[in-house]
Amino acid sequence: MATKQMCDSWDRADSLAEFRDRFILPDGVIYLDGNSLGPVPKTTPGRVANMIEQEGGAHLIGGWLADGWMEKPLILGDRVAKLIGAGPGEVAVVDTTSINLFKLLAAALRLRPERRIILSNHENFPTDLYMAQGLSAWLDQGHELRLVDESQIEAAIGDDVAVVMLTQTNFKTGRVLDMAAITEAAHRAGALTLWDLAHSAGAFPVALNTAKADFAVGCSYKYLNAGPGGPAFLFVAERHQALAEQPLTGWLGHENPFAFETSYRPAVGIRRHVCSSPGVLGLVAFEAALEIFEAADINDLRAKSNALCDLFITLVEERCGDFGFELLSPRQAGLVEPLLRGSQVSFAHPEGYAIIQALIRRGVIGDFRDPHVLRFGFAPLYLRYGDVYDAVDQLRQVMDGREWDDHSLKERAAVT
Amino acid sequence: MATKQMCDSWDRADSLAEFRDRFILPDGVIYLDGNSLGPVPKTTPGRVANMIEQEGGAHLIGGWLADGWMEKPLILGDRVAKLIGAGPGEVAVVDTTSINLFKLLAAALRLRPERRIILSNHENFPTDLYMAQGLSAWLDQGHELRLVDESQIEAAIGDDVAVVMLTQTNFKTGRVLDMAAITEAAHRAGALTLWDLAHSAGAFPVALNTAKADFAVGCSYKYLNAGPGGPAFLFVAERHQALAEQPLTGWLGHENPFAFETSYRPAVGIRRHVCSSPGVLGLVAFEAALEIFEAADINDLRAKSNALCDLFITLVEERCGDFGFELLSPRQAGLVEPLLRGSQVSFAHPEGYAIIQALIRRGVIGDFRDPHVLRFGFAPLYLRYGDVYDAVDQLRQVMDGREWDDHSLKERAAVT
Repeated sequence: MATKQMCDSWDRADSLAEFRDRFILPDGVIYLDGNSLGPVPKTTPGRVANMIEQEGGAHLIGGWLADGWMEKPLILGDRVAKLIGAGPGEVAVVDTTSINLFKLLAAALRLRPERRIILSNHENFPTDLYMAQGLSAWLDQGHELRLVDESQIEAAIGDDVAVVMLTQTNFKTGRVLDMAAITEAAHRAGALTLWDLAHSAGAFPVALNTAKADFAVGCSYKYLNAGPGGPAFLFVAERHQALAEQPLTGWLGHENPFAFETSYRPAVGIRRHVCSSPGVLGLVAFEAALEIFEAADINDLRAKSNALCDLFITLVEERCGDFGFELLSPRQAGLVEPLLRGSQVSFAHPEGYAIIQALIRRGVIGDFRDPHVLRFGFAPLYLRYGDVYDAVDQLRQVMDGREWDDHSLKERAAVT
Repeated sequence: MATKQMCDSWDRADSLAEFRDRFILPDGVIYLDGNSLGPVPKTTPGRVANMIEQEGGAHLIGGWLADGWMEKPLILGDRVAKLIGAGPGEVAVVDTTSINLFKLLAAALRLRPERRIILSNHENFPTDLYMAQGLSAWLDQGHELRLVDESQIEAAIGDDVAVVMLTQTNFKTGRVLDMAAITEAAHRAGALTLWDLAHSAGAFPVALNTAKADFAVGCSYKYLNAGPGGPAFLFVAERHQALAEQPLTGWLGHENPFAFETSYRPAVGIRRHVCSSPGVLGLVAFEAALEIFEAADINDLRAKSNALCDLFITLVEERCGDFGFELLSPRQAGLVEPLLRGSQVSFAHPEGYAIIQALIRRGVIGDFRDPHVLRFGFAPLYLRYGDVYDAVDQLRQVMDGREWDDHSLKERAAVT
């Protein structure tokens, strides 16, 4: 059985231990919700304030060019590309995950004009399903969002499927879909793939181009630590860029925005998927976070993430084994493709909601998902083995003391 | 003829003079480009940094509810509403101007399903035209963007027009369209109106509900001083809210986002036009700016804006009258509806581009628009009568010394 002493010794030997001090973390809290909203680096507030004062104050309108604000979506895109297995010129940081999904789903459907099925799974995060419903209804061309169970995806890819639209990492269970195998099955059937990397990017090395993925979107404020509502990103494989067009044709996606032409002409490359003047504050905050990812190795992060998650599973089963927790996440994580589990561990328990509330009162921040899922994210940049030990210790005390109750903090814990 | 002494005395008597000190403004610069990107209040950097450190650091995931992040789009919307003549619950602060235009144009077209014409004018800002083109192409139902000259709008509103989509204030000339008269003409023909308030909001008291406008969008980073790429807003008149639906159906527009239902159901009211988790940094920066507008009276701002613009026209004509400048903006501004001129003054000159560059080198920041437009914005919150005098004095020196040349700073000055 793992002891606190053993955990502390692993922390002392941890080559990533130095990174914890780079983040703003509240005192007395073990934060296991970085899969929902990550903490930001200590450099972020000053970086953003400095941008506003120095670039904004000194350059004002000149900042759009003097400080490269206009180019930031593409420059940051190239930096994100390295974390998700994409190449230069394939990623832009822009807008929100949902809006980017709308753009790229529209682009993908247009590349398969004779097909009408968008295939996804019941377990997908609802906003992705909603955006597909909204787009289908507005196109009014008979498109249908077909939902199957996670285990049935590959079997369901028939030759009527235009796009296979999936979130790679299940937000409730942390299960990771086999991007390469599903993409291969999709391509065999003549379909395209659109991957949501919300709980993948920054959590493990995503391999978009190795898997031959077609399109992808993702989020910066979960494992990537860009701060609340940080900008999203989108990926279009280089081979699709000449033909992929999307309907949100704003002036910054125009081939020559400053010509102020009356008719839209899409820019060459990934830029045509940028729409509006970028929200510079959010981009600057994301830059501060990306610097940390560039100082760490994503493969080292993955190895520690697996170790933290494995330790949590082991300790919960050893120390809380009598209390009826059922492991929902895959027991195996995987270090090389195909990966099986993201950087989170979920357990089911009939009193799950109340148990999470009791843990939060004790300073262990996990979250709850209907109907009875306790969800814990393990971000290796700022979590220690000792934190895992202490979190399970608190859980044990909650269970021993039957501390669950029903007072309503449900919404507070319920943000994805 | 106005003298510098007279200008200084007007500044001493100006009841709005105190506001200038609240903004971050570079030394030695007369900033006449606040219609493109406004400076931010001195409180903004600290406010944003503090939000990141305190709310973000202390509350992390809890911030979405404990700090009201989720509600900010609607709370700020109600504050913006007061500046644009809208009521509570009619405005949300969200996404970008272009994306909001796409949403509301789609919503408006759906309310007029038997009609296919989107009417706008050649002089409209290109991104609005591009978004309408993108939407029309994707709907693939025969919609057409019909462009007429600004002076022909009312006459062109036939009974085939679904939506009259206009930017209230011409970005090149500052001419203000008669929102009430055009809206009345549109309604008489059975059409709806969609107004872009990009160069209106914060520049003068917009009167959406008095004009019976149907839909509107706008920008926070011009006259509203929210900072680079600050969040945009949208307005849906209360009478349309039950039926108006838009295609970007993200989870935060769902009637119950936290139920994680599989099918989208639009929220009641303006909330259905919110799509994604809000970019909190941009919203907090906007809050800092709105506080200033709540301390000033928008009618006082309008009166001073008119006085600054009138003074500029008079001085240019008096002191630079021999150099071939042609006034492009309306000579009359108006204090009560219908307003005729926004808060900017534009002149045409064959050497316009080079003259603007020479002025910028002298610290007078205006901007240039093709083919030969010199554009000067006059934001009464931070500009003085003495600044107007000095700007014209610099212009006179540029003209006397034939300082124009052709070195290329075109793009730098060319951001709307």
